[in-house]
Amino acid sequence: MKAGLEQCAGLVQACFDAVLAPMGDLPVVAGMRYASRGGKRLRAFLVMESAALHGIDPVQSVWAATAVEALHAYSLVHDDLPCMDDDDLRRGMPTVHVKWDEATAVLVGDALQTMAFEVLARDECAPDPARRIALVASLARASGAQGMVLGQAQDIAAESAAAPLDLFQITELQNNKTGALIEWSAKAGPLLAGADPSAMGAYARALGLAFQIHDDVLDVTGDAALTGKAVGKDAEAGKATFVSLLGLEGAKSRAAALVEDACDALSPYGTRADALRDVARFVISRQT
Amino acid sequence: MKAGLEQCAGLVQACFDAVLAPMGDLPVVAGMRYASRGGKRLRAFLVMESAALHGIDPVQSVWAATAVEALHAYSLVHDDLPCMDDDDLRRGMPTVHVKWDEATAVLVGDALQTMAFEVLARDECAPDPARRIALVASLARASGAQGMVLGQAQDIAAESAAAPLDLFQITELQNNKTGALIEWSAKAGPLLAGADPSAMGAYARALGLAFQIHDDVLDVTGDAALTGKAVGKDAEAGKATFVSLLGLEGAKSRAAALVEDACDALSPYGTRADALRDVARFVISRQT
Repeated sequence: MKAGLEQCAGLVQACFDAVLAPMGDLPVVAGMRYASRGGKRLRAFLVMESAALHGIDPVQSVWAATAVEALHAYSLVHDDLPCMDDDDLRRGMPTVHVKWDEATAVLVGDALQTMAFEVLARDECAPDPARRIALVASLARASGAQGMVLGQAQDIAAESAAAPLDLFQITELQNNKTGALIEWSAKAGPLLAGADPSAMGAYARALGLAFQIHDDVLDVTGDAALTGKAVGKDAEAGKATFVSLLGLEGAKSRAAALVEDACDALSPYGTRADALRDVARFVISRQT
Repeated sequence: MKAGLEQCAGLVQACFDAVLAPMGDLPVVAGMRYASRGGKRLRAFLVMESAALHGIDPVQSVWAATAVEALHAYSLVHDDLPCMDDDDLRRGMPTVHVKWDEATAVLVGDALQTMAFEVLARDECAPDPARRIALVASLARASGAQGMVLGQAQDIAAESAAAPLDLFQITELQNNKTGALIEWSAKAGPLLAGADPSAMGAYARALGLAFQIHDDVLDVTGDAALTGKAVGKDAEAGKATFVSLLGLEGAKSRAAALVEDACDALSPYGTRADALRDVARFVISRQT
């Protein structure tokens, strides 16, 4: 599975390089290259592995994988801005607005979002335009003001709320902020093949929540040198997290139970889905 | 033509209302409603008029028109940010980051961009998915790091350049920053109909440049009470403009010549394209 993640990361990087090569060397394009490098490529792996399970060649699925990583990269660049989370470090490196400036960071995020849709619209992504437009429509729904951006807005609203969020509210917030894009990634395979995406959807919803619970665990137990970003920020800000609501051990066992649910949801695929089960277990064992 | 612009503006507003209605009332959605109100709706008019010339019903073309206005609105919200042009007024009203805050303005712009692609991907926009994906692909190219965002990046780079831009460079910058989206709008009609977009493209390239030259003229001669935004900003900043390069009279006559070129490019459509000729003349006579 580790090898699979690395192979996928290599293919996605080559696709980014190919898309960005003709765009020249202005700071906005240099910033796009910088912001799209590295990371675990978890979303790309979900796209390519769910696609492989449905008989889609990596040469094709790498385009949808690159699209979702471009979209994810845009969200990180804007999230890190001084007016948002105000983070100086990302993956152990200076964030885009620190390395360049805020105006460049705004434009880098804007252009990475556009790139996600541009890549999905290419012939290489799927020969059938109906499949491509289905991917565009679902990615827009997952990432806009009814998906990821809604989650970010709920996160901002929570900061000035009278009371910390309860478990229901924080689950909904995280489902929007992180879960929707993870779900899109796992459903991209069946969507590319014109197959039923419901089993992949159930897998991804459980996985996405486990992922976010483990992120809250890492914010308490993590090592900034390993995670490459500041830790303890949420507790310091007095924000409700899965750890503040469930306790450290409660959060860990909830994440483990969700990973079991995620693995069970893959039963229609039998052992062919073992790489996706491995990645679910990896998500709650990772130190970064 | 004035009536046509107003009718188009009404249809586009109803489409925005319908798309945004199910999204609730968080500040990000309130900001999307606020930022997408008003304006001349020039781009929407170009979409709907070019579509009508190719036999496309307004009930259909209003979706592509709304998409391009959402994209244009996103660019204005981000352009107005303190780290970009730092404008407090837009269309005579406080800008989004003034009325709410910077974080909300970043998210409002992000979500309006997503909305543009979400709307283009809807069945209502075109029954044939191949036509919809062609619109998505071309809008992404027109607005990303090889189109509008490239123009904005060139604009930022010009501020710290050793010498002011020359006429060739400022024309290229403006073609990217403003021209690409205007060209997309005029070509949307033929693209929706599967027709040749070349005459509309030639019309729009001349029109877009005339539009931008007249913007520079208004920055010198305009009345802030009429334009609803600060005037004289470019001259104050020592930026090269068409007026600084051609003189006020030279700029006016260049814009007039471009409008004649734009009208001539419509000859394949005969007198049926007179509303588009009228809008070209309007572009260089407007006071706002």
